[in-house]
Amino acid sequence: MMPSKIDVAILVGSDSDLPILEETTNTLESFGVAYDITIASAHRTPDKVEKFVQSSLEKGAEVFIAAAGMSAALPGVVASKTIKPVIGVPIQGKSLSGLDALLSMVQMPSGIPVATVSIDKTGAKNAGVLAVQILSLKYKELEEKLKSYKEKMSDDVDLKDEKLQKMGIKNYITKK
Amino acid sequence: MMPSKIDVAILVGSDSDLPILEETTNTLESFGVAYDITIASAHRTPDKVEKFVQSSLEKGAEVFIAAAGMSAALPGVVASKTIKPVIGVPIQGKSLSGLDALLSMVQMPSGIPVATVSIDKTGAKNAGVLAVQILSLKYKELEEKLKSYKEKMSDDVDLKDEKLQKMGIKNYITKK
Amino acid sequence: MMPSKIDVAILVGSDSDLPILEETTNTLESFGVAYDITIASAHRTPDKVEKFVQSSLEKGAEVFIAAAGMSAALPGVVASKTIKPVIGVPIQGKSLSGLDALLSMVQMPSGIPVATVSIDKTGAKNAGVLAVQILSLKYKELEEKLKSYKEKMSDDVDLKDEKLQKMGIKNYITKK
Amino acid sequence: MMPSKIDVAILVGSDSDLPILEETTNTLESFGVAYDITIASAHRTPDKVEKFVQSSLEKGAEVFIAAAGMSAALPGVVASKTIKPVIGVPIQGKSLSGLDALLSMVQMPSGIPVATVSIDKTGAKNAGVLAVQILSLKYKELEEKLKSYKEKMSDDVDLKDEKLQKMGIKNYITKK
Amino acid sequence: MMPSKIDVAILVGSDSDLPILEETTNTLESFGVAYDITIASAHRTPDKVEKFVQSSLEKGAEVFIAAAGMSAALPGVVASKTIKPVIGVPIQGKSLSGLDALLSMVQMPSGIPVATVSIDKTGAKNAGVLAVQILSLKYKELEEKLKSYKEKMSDDVDLKDEKLQKMGIKNYITKK
Amino acid sequence: MMPSKIDVAILVGSDSDLPILEETTNTLESFGVAYDITIASAHRTPDKVEKFVQSSLEKGAEVFIAAAGMSAALPGVVASKTIKPVIGVPIQGKSLSGLDALLSMVQMPSGIPVATVSIDKTGAKNAGVLAVQILSLKYKELEEKLKSYKEKMSDDVDLKDEKLQKMGIKNYITKK
Amino acid sequence: MMPSKIDVAILVGSDSDLPILEETTNTLESFGVAYDITIASAHRTPDKVEKFVQSSLEKGAEVFIAAAGMSAALPGVVASKTIKPVIGVPIQGKSLSGLDALLSMVQMPSGIPVATVSIDKTGAKNAGVLAVQILSLKYKELEEKLKSYKEKMSDDVDLKDEKLQKMGIKNYITKK
Amino acid sequence: MMPSKIDVAILVGSDSDLPILEETTNTLESFGVAYDITIASAHRTPDKVEKFVQSSLEKGAEVFIAAAGMSAALPGVVASKTIKPVIGVPIQGKSLSGLDALLSMVQMPSGIPVATVSIDKTGAKNAGVLAVQILSLKYKELEEKLKSYKEKMSDDVDLKDEKLQKMGIKNYITKK
Repeated sequence: MMPSKIDVAILVGSDSDLPILEETTNTLESFGVAYDITIASAHRTPDKVEKFVQSSLEKGAEVFIAAAGMSAALPGVVASKTIKPVIGVPIQGKSLSGLDALLSMVQMPSGIPVATVSIDKTGAKNAGVLAVQILSLKYKELEEKLKSYKEKMSDDVDLKDEKLQKMGIKNYITKK
Repeated sequence: MMPSKIDVAILVGSDSDLPILEETTNTLESFGVAYDITIASAHRTPDKVEKFVQSSLEKGAEVFIAAAGMSAALPGVVASKTIKPVIGVPIQGKSLSGLDALLSMVQMPSGIPVATVSIDKTGAKNAGVLAVQILSLKYKELEEKLKSYKEKMSDDVDLKDEKLQKMGIKNYITKK
Repeated sequence: MMPSKIDVAILVGSDSDLPILEETTNTLESFGVAYDITIASAHRTPDKVEKFVQSSLEKGAEVFIAAAGMSAALPGVVASKTIKPVIGVPIQGKSLSGLDALLSMVQMPSGIPVATVSIDKTGAKNAGVLAVQILSLKYKELEEKLKSYKEKMSDDVDLKDEKLQKMGIKNYITKK
Repeated sequence: MMPSKIDVAILVGSDSDLPILEETTNTLESFGVAYDITIASAHRTPDKVEKFVQSSLEKGAEVFIAAAGMSAALPGVVASKTIKPVIGVPIQGKSLSGLDALLSMVQMPSGIPVATVSIDKTGAKNAGVLAVQILSLKYKELEEKLKSYKEKMSDDVDLKDEKLQKMGIKNYITKK
Repeated sequence: MMPSKIDVAILVGSDSDLPILEETTNTLESFGVAYDITIASAHRTPDKVEKFVQSSLEKGAEVFIAAAGMSAALPGVVASKTIKPVIGVPIQGKSLSGLDALLSMVQMPSGIPVATVSIDKTGAKNAGVLAVQILSLKYKELEEKLKSYKEKMSDDVDLKDEKLQKMGIKNYITKK
Repeated sequence: MMPSKIDVAILVGSDSDLPILEETTNTLESFGVAYDITIASAHRTPDKVEKFVQSSLEKGAEVFIAAAGMSAALPGVVASKTIKPVIGVPIQGKSLSGLDALLSMVQMPSGIPVATVSIDKTGAKNAGVLAVQILSLKYKELEEKLKSYKEKMSDDVDLKDEKLQKMGIKNYITKK
Repeated sequence: MMPSKIDVAILVGSDSDLPILEETTNTLESFGVAYDITIASAHRTPDKVEKFVQSSLEKGAEVFIAAAGMSAALPGVVASKTIKPVIGVPIQGKSLSGLDALLSMVQMPSGIPVATVSIDKTGAKNAGVLAVQILSLKYKELEEKLKSYKEKMSDDVDLKDEKLQKMGIKNYITKK
Repeated sequence: MMPSKIDVAILVGSDSDLPILEETTNTLESFGVAYDITIASAHRTPDKVEKFVQSSLEKGAEVFIAAAGMSAALPGVVASKTIKPVIGVPIQGKSLSGLDALLSMVQMPSGIPVATVSIDKTGAKNAGVLAVQILSLKYKELEEKLKSYKEKMSDDVDLKDEKLQKMGIKNYITKK
C-alpha cells in the first residue's frame, strides 16, 4: 500500500466526535491500513460530503466509515453516493441514550445498506476491524494480521483470567 | 396565487407513502394553496431531491414538506439545501412503531431544524395546516381561512358532543 | 422592525429551562429579531399563558416558541389559542431521557400542529433558526442573513477540518 | 344522590374513544354513581373544556376523569382548572404502543397531579373504580359496594379456577 | 383531626427512597394532614405490608401512598388489600430511566387501580397533593387550603416572570 | 414420582393466559413431571395465591412458575412466600409490546429473584424446560430426558436443513 | 465463479425466517453471486454453526450473512469463528417490535463487529446488496452491476414519479 | 461439600464486570456454596467458554451463572452447551440503560432458557440467591440457610423501620 493511496475514508459529523473516532484510526493504523479522515456534515456541508466521497474514490478508497449522532444521516448520505461498503458508527448524544443515532443509521431503506456497528467507542473500534475484514478480501496480508489480532484478543482474556485465578476476585478488584 | 406558481413543495420517499400524504394535499387544496408533490428518495435519488428543491424554489415555494419512514433522512437532506422552513412527517414502518422515523427526523443537529409533526396520517394533515400557518405570515387571506378552519374543528367537536348528549354513550357507540 | 413590536413570543414552563432557552434568544438576537420571553406554565398558570398569547398577538408576534419538560403540554396549549405557527422545544427531565417531553409535544392531534425540534440546547437553537426561516417569508432581509448563517456554519466545519488535516487526529484531540 | 346532581365528570378528547370509555360509564352505573360525559378537546375546544369543568363543579362533581390519546394533554388541562382529583386514562393510538399518551399524562409537573391508570379498556374500567374509591370517603354506602365488588372479582377468579380444576387445561381452552 | 388518628398511610419499599418521599410528607404537613410512614417491602416483608394496611385502616387512613422502584409491586399489593384509593410513586433506579417502576405501577389489571403519578421527587410531591385533593371531599377545610396552594404556585411563577422581565434572560441566568 | 405429589406449581393471573401456558404444561407432561396449575391473581385474590403456594409446598412442589401480563406482580408475590425457585413468564398485553410485564418481572429487588424467561409462548415452553433442568438436580432420570430433548431439538433443525438443501429455498417456502 | 465454490454463506436461526431471507438470496442471484444457505441455530445446534462456518470457508466464502430474531446471537457466534465480514439481519418477533433482535446484534463487544442492517425484509435485501458491495472489492465485474443496480433503483423512483405527475395523487392511489 | 468440587460455575464476559459479580460470589460464600469464576467471552474466546463449561460439569457444577453487557450472548452460549440451569445477569453498558443486555439475555428461543435476573448489582446478588434456591433441591441444609436469609432480610427492614418510627423521616435522612 503506497502512502498516496488510501483504503478507508472516514467522515465525522462533528469535531466533538473525534475522540471517539480515534479508536477507529488507531485500529486502522495498527493494521497498516491507509485512511483519510474529514469533518463533514450531511446537513451543514452536504457538498463537502459529496466532494470528499468523490476524491476518496479517486484515491482508491474501498470502504467508507461515517460516524454521527442524533439524526445521524451521514452514513446514509455517503451510501447514496457510492457503491462501496459504508460502515456507520452511532454516537450517543446528550438525550435518548444513543437510540436516536442507532435507529437513524441502521433502518436504511431497501437497496442502500449501511453496515451499522455498536454505539460510541466500541463501535468506533469495530468499524476499524470491520473495514480491515472487508479489505482482507483483496489484500491477503491482512488475513494473517486479523488472525493474530483475534488470537491476541483471546490471549488478553486468558491473561486476565489467569490473574483472576491466582488473585481471586477480591484481590483482583482491589489491586487492579 | 397563479397556477404556474407553487407555495408548498412536497417530497415523499416512497410511493407507498402517498395514501398518507393525501391528507396533506387535501388540506392544502382546501385552503387553496398551490403545491407540487414528487417521489424522491434521499438515498436512492439524492440528485433528484436537490433538483426538485431548486426547481421548487424557482417556482416560488415558501415551505417544504418531506415525509419518510425508517431512517427518515429526507427532510434533513431537504433542509440542508434550502433556508426555507422544512416540515417533516414521520411514517410508521413495519417495525419499531414509528419511533425510528420520528427520532431520525426530530433530532436534527444545531442550525438545521426540521419542524417535525405527528406520525402518519395525523402528522400528514398537520403538516398541511402548519404550512398554511407559515404561509399566512405572507398571504393574509389565509389567516381568515385558518380561523374558520379552527372554528369548524371546534364546531365538529360540539356537534358530536350534542349528539352524545342526546343519544347517550350506549346509543352513540352502537348507532354510529 | 420597531422596538415596540415583537416578531417572536417565547414561553418557558419553568425558570430552570432558561439556560437552555438562551440558545433561542441568542439566535434571535443575532438575526435582529425582536422577541418577548415569559415564564408561564400550562398547568400552573393557564390564564397567564392565554393572556401572554393574546398580548403577544397584539404586539405583532408571528411565531410562537414554547419549551417544556416532562408532560410538556405548553406548546400544544399555545397552539390551541392561536393560528400562528408554534414551535415546541422538548426539555429533558431527570428521568426517561427526554422521551416524555418529545412524545408529549410531537404527537399533537389532527388540526393543531406543533413544529417540534430537537431535545434541549440543540432544539432551543434550532427553534430560533426555524422562527427566522418562517419570518423570512415576510421579511426578505432575513433571507440574506439566513444564507450567511448557513455559509458560516459550513465555513466553521471547513475551518475545523482544515485544522484536522494540518494537525492530525491525535494532535487535534490533545491540543483542542 | 339526586339525578340533577353529578359525582363524576368525564371528558373524552375524541368520539372515537367512547367505546373504550363505556367501561368507565358501565362501572360507575353499576355503583349507582351519577356522571356527565362530554366530548371536549384540550387542543380543539379549550374553552369548552373550561366551561364543562366549571359547570360540572356547579353540579357537584367531586372527581374528574379525562381520557385522551397521543399528546394527551386533556387530563392535565382539566387539573389546571380544578382542585378536585383528576384521573387520566391513556388511549393507545396507531403508533408507539400507547407510550405517548401514558408519558404525556403521568409525567405532570410539581403541584398538579394526574392520577394515571392503565392504558385503554383496563384503565377505563379502573378509572371508574378509582373514582368510586375516592367518592367512598364521602358516601359511606359506596364502601360496602366496593367490598362486594372486590369479593365478586375474587369469586370470579375462584369460579374460573374451579372450572379449570374440573376440566383440566386442555378442555378449558378448547371448550371455553 | 386528632393526633391519634391518621388520614394518609405511606409505604416505602426501601429506606433509600425516604429522601424522595420527604417531598410527600412535607406536602402533607403543610396541609395539616396526619400521616404514618413505614418502610415495608412487598417482596421482603409481605406480612408487614398487610399488617400496616390493616392498622392504618383502624387508625382511620383514607388514602394510601406507596413508593417503590424497579419491579415496583408495592402499590399494587397495597391496593389488593384495601378499597381505599392507593397512589403510586415510581422511583427511578440505576437502570432503565425509571421506565421499569412506572410500567410496573401504572399497568394494573382490571378492578384494582393504582393512581400513578410522576417519577421521583415531582411524583412524591404530587402524591401528597393528590392525597389532599381526595381528602378534601370529606374535609372541606382542605378545599380552601388547596385553592391557596394553587394560587401560591401561580404567584410563584408570576414572581419569577416579573424578575425575568426586569433582569432579562442573561442576568436572570447569571445572578440566580 | 407418585401421582399425589407434585414437582411444579403453576399460577396464571388470568384464564386468558391459559392457551399460552399450555406450552408449559405440555412440556412438563412430555418429561413426566407432575404439576398443579391454578388461576390466581396477585391483585384480585392475594390470599388464594398464598394458600396455593402453601398447599403446593405441602404437596412437595420444588419449583414455581408464574405467568402474568401488564403490571405482572404475580411471580414476585410468589417469590416473597417461598424459598423455592420461581420462574416468571411475561405475557404480552394489548399495549406496550410486552415490555411492561417483562420489566415488572425481571427487575426484582435484592434478595428475591424471579428467574424470568422470554415473552409469551416461547417463554411458556422455556419455563417448562427450566423447571425440568432445576428438578434434574434431584431427579437424575430427568438428566437423560433433557439430553434427549436437546438432541431432538438439534435433530429437528438438521431435518429442516436437509429438506432445505434438497428443495432449495424457493420450494421450501412454497411447499411448506 | 465456479458452481462448486461459494462467495456468500447464509445462516438462518429458524426455517420460519426463510421467507424473509428469500430477499437476500434473490438479490445475490440477480448479481450472479454463488451462496450456500443453511438452517442452523446458535443455541440449538452450536456445533452445526461452527461446522457450516468451516465448510463455507473451505468453499471460499468471503462474506457471511446471519439472520435471527429475539435474542439474536447467531451473527455474533459466526463472527467469533471467522475473520471474514459478518452481516446481521434482525428479524422481528411477536413482541417488542424487533428491538430485541436489533440490540442483540448491533451492540457487539470490542473487536468482533457484526455489520447490522435494517429489520426484516428490507434488511434481508440490504444484506445481499452489502455482501455484493464487499465482494466487489475483489470481483471487479460486480462494480458495474452495482452501478446498474443503483441506476435502476433511481430509474424506478423516476418512473413512479412520472406516473404521479401524469395521474395526480388521487388517481395514483386509487388506480395503483 | 468438598473443596475440590464446585456447585456453581460463573462466567463473566469482561473483567470490568467483576466488581458487579462480587455480589454473586459474596452471596454464594455466605451460603457456603463452592464456585469457580472465570473470565471468558462468548465472542472473543468461544472455545474457552466451551472448555470451562465442560470442566465445570466434571467438577460437579449444578448451576451456571453468566454475566455480560451489550449484545450479551454469553448466558445463551453457555445454555447451548449444557442441560444445567443457566442464570443470566444483564450488565448495563454506557448506552441504552441496560436494555440491550436485558433483551439479549431474556428473549431466548424455544427450548434453551436463560433464567434472567435484574440488571447489574441487584441481579448479581439475586443470581447468587437463585443458584442457592436451585441447589437447595439437592442439598437440604441450604433450605434452612435460605429461611434464615429471608428472615434476616425481613428483620433488616423491620430494624430500619423501627429507626424511622423513633427518629422521624427528617432525622432519619439527615443522620443516616
